[in-house]
Amino acid sequence: MADSCLSDVFNFSAGPAAIPETVLQRARDELLTRGTSFPSLMEVPFSSAAFRTIADQAHQRLSALLALPDNYRILFMAGGAMAQFGLLPLNLLGSSKRLAYVDSGYWASRAITEARRFATVDIVASAWRDDEGVHLPAPKSWGLETLDRGVAYCHYTANETADGAQFPELHEHSSSDVAVVCDMTSSFLARPLDVSRYGLIYAGAQKNIGPAGLTVVLVRDDLLGRSAPQTPDVFNYGLQSEARSCRNTPPTFAVGLANLVFEWIADNGGLSAMARHNDEKSAMVYRTIAESCGFYRCPVAPGSRSGINVCFTLPDEVLTERFIVEAEENGLHHLRGHSRIGGIRASFYNAVPHAAAVALSQFMKDFQARRG
Amino acid sequence: MADSCLSDVFNFSAGPAAIPETVLQRARDELLTRGTSFPSLMEVPFSSAAFRTIADQAHQRLSALLALPDNYRILFMAGGAMAQFGLLPLNLLGSSKRLAYVDSGYWASRAITEARRFATVDIVASAWRDDEGVHLPAPKSWGLETLDRGVAYCHYTANETADGAQFPELHEHSSSDVAVVCDMTSSFLARPLDVSRYGLIYAGAQKNIGPAGLTVVLVRDDLLGRSAPQTPDVFNYGLQSEARSCRNTPPTFAVGLANLVFEWIADNGGLSAMARHNDEKSAMVYRTIAESCGFYRCPVAPGSRSGINVCFTLPDEVLTERFIVEAEENGLHHLRGHSRIGGIRASFYNAVPHAAAVALSQFMKDFQARRG
Repeated sequence: MADSCLSDVFNFSAGPAAIPETVLQRARDELLTRGTSFPSLMEVPFSSAAFRTIADQAHQRLSALLALPDNYRILFMAGGAMAQFGLLPLNLLGSSKRLAYVDSGYWASRAITEARRFATVDIVASAWRDDEGVHLPAPKSWGLETLDRGVAYCHYTANETADGAQFPELHEHSSSDVAVVCDMTSSFLARPLDVSRYGLIYAGAQKNIGPAGLTVVLVRDDLLGRSAPQTPDVFNYGLQSEARSCRNTPPTFAVGLANLVFEWIADNGGLSAMARHNDEKSAMVYRTIAESCGFYRCPVAPGSRSGINVCFTLPDEVLTERFIVEAEENGLHHLRGHSRIGGIRASFYNAVPHAAAVALSQFMKDFQARRG
Repeated sequence: MADSCLSDVFNFSAGPAAIPETVLQRARDELLTRGTSFPSLMEVPFSSAAFRTIADQAHQRLSALLALPDNYRILFMAGGAMAQFGLLPLNLLGSSKRLAYVDSGYWASRAITEARRFATVDIVASAWRDDEGVHLPAPKSWGLETLDRGVAYCHYTANETADGAQFPELHEHSSSDVAVVCDMTSSFLARPLDVSRYGLIYAGAQKNIGPAGLTVVLVRDDLLGRSAPQTPDVFNYGLQSEARSCRNTPPTFAVGLANLVFEWIADNGGLSAMARHNDEKSAMVYRTIAESCGFYRCPVAPGSRSGINVCFTLPDEVLTERFIVEAEENGLHHLRGHSRIGGIRASFYNAVPHAAAVALSQFMKDFQARRG
């Protein structure tokens, strides 16, 4: 990316993740500006004109990045994507009793567990494993066109951060009558996106948006107004939409940071440029895995591999631990895989520079030469 | 306070509110430290040892400030206090069907509206108004000792931020069988507190804790384990307590800031010193009101006035608007009263310096001399 790398240490964390250097610099500059643009970004009242300007700007910038159709609303909601796992059925079930979910891995299964508190959940497709590794079920196999219209929505997880598996964008089903709801937490803003194919998209901020504690929800306006009576006001999509996400005090500082990140993405070529850079980074590490003669193995089948979270294993636990320790010593941080999955995971969000992929690939080759 | 005032502009916002100058300086210094303490406070993974250290330190510092009894748990939850309005009944109702609430003003009434989604709410006491202004109902009038044990808890709002009314600390009812639940958002850490008198205390961060988007919950451990089956995991007090508030990604940066604020409070004399300074600030403005021969009027009766949010009115709307405009021109920011209440409101949270009260009092006298 255009950001210069201030040092040769890199953050491969799956989230909270790297934030663009220039955004951190601007946030730093705005943290203590009493007397110039008083008060600071962290202290500005949410009901003030100053915050309204920031929130409106964030709204406009995100709309522009996505070429957001007019019939979609943007909500900036407090908390993470897991909160939405329960809020989706509360807000979208309406008079329906059934939901359809795609079970693609760790995060999809947690979403399913939460949805089952509120409705009957039909699993319309699941990931499977063979000698090639984990395969995600192709969208055309979900049977969206033949789903009972009594199903309130069909939910899937665009990118399985823990498993390192990712769906292609959903092109096949724009004509389905059932709204497609997508957890896009770890792939949002990582590549161009046709929002019109979705009923609702949600994404926790701590990957490509900003600091943890904020979730962006994009919702088609015909899906508003279905919230169950027990939905608390602050969790009600319709009320938050009417209140421009200010039904209560929003996480103001996080919204301010997101505004800066949206600007940074636009300044650096928009979503197409993000996609190109992200693909280069992950492809480089996948190539290193492929050329390792089996020393490194990716547990995901080639057609289902994530362009964001590259997961791989080493021959045994001892080597895995040594890899993590030596990587840290070499400035390559937070490469440990998800606690339920194990192995190594390198996450390539927008703010992770190309040099990080180069450094990791070189380290992998060196490590194999020494320990393989 | 010990913080020097970098300039003569002051933030009287009711929230998000002023943050201690030294905390902003340290946050600024920690925002961009790649290469020294990598990664920055905003990018640190929540599952890392680095974040665990920060969260444990925040926990220990808050426990020390409050002399927290061993049988209380601290939860750092995402979102604001309004989210808790619905989460309280979800987590505490258990097999009960009834709740008791004190209706003391704007925020209490919003809490009551949310609680009524889940249970029958008995209003055990209400604020009333006479020639002196608004009176809060004394705790001894709530009838806590004679409440049916089938009531899951009795809820009150310690300080009504919008109305400018505050209860004394609840000393009379420590022997009640019914758990007292307190929304302490705008008075938490503003004065010493005997936690053992409460079943649960909650406080949104954006007053005396840190940036918006975080809520601290203190809960007596015998109240855990009552959550309704429909409670989403991330909103379940028991599960979050077991997970040390990391059942999902917490608002990591906000927790890091809170940790710095807790340290700042301790370094500046703890809660007793906060109380002394806060009382001096608000008393100064109340005295200016009293000495204005009725030009300024406080709509709250003397015994119920808030030591945090000083509300007052001017003779008419034109003077009120002019007061706000001229105050801004004089560096006195965000004095407009709550949108539903009107008038003027000056909030004296911990981080608002003594000089702010001096400057506001002087401005009030000057304004009256010119316009009265």
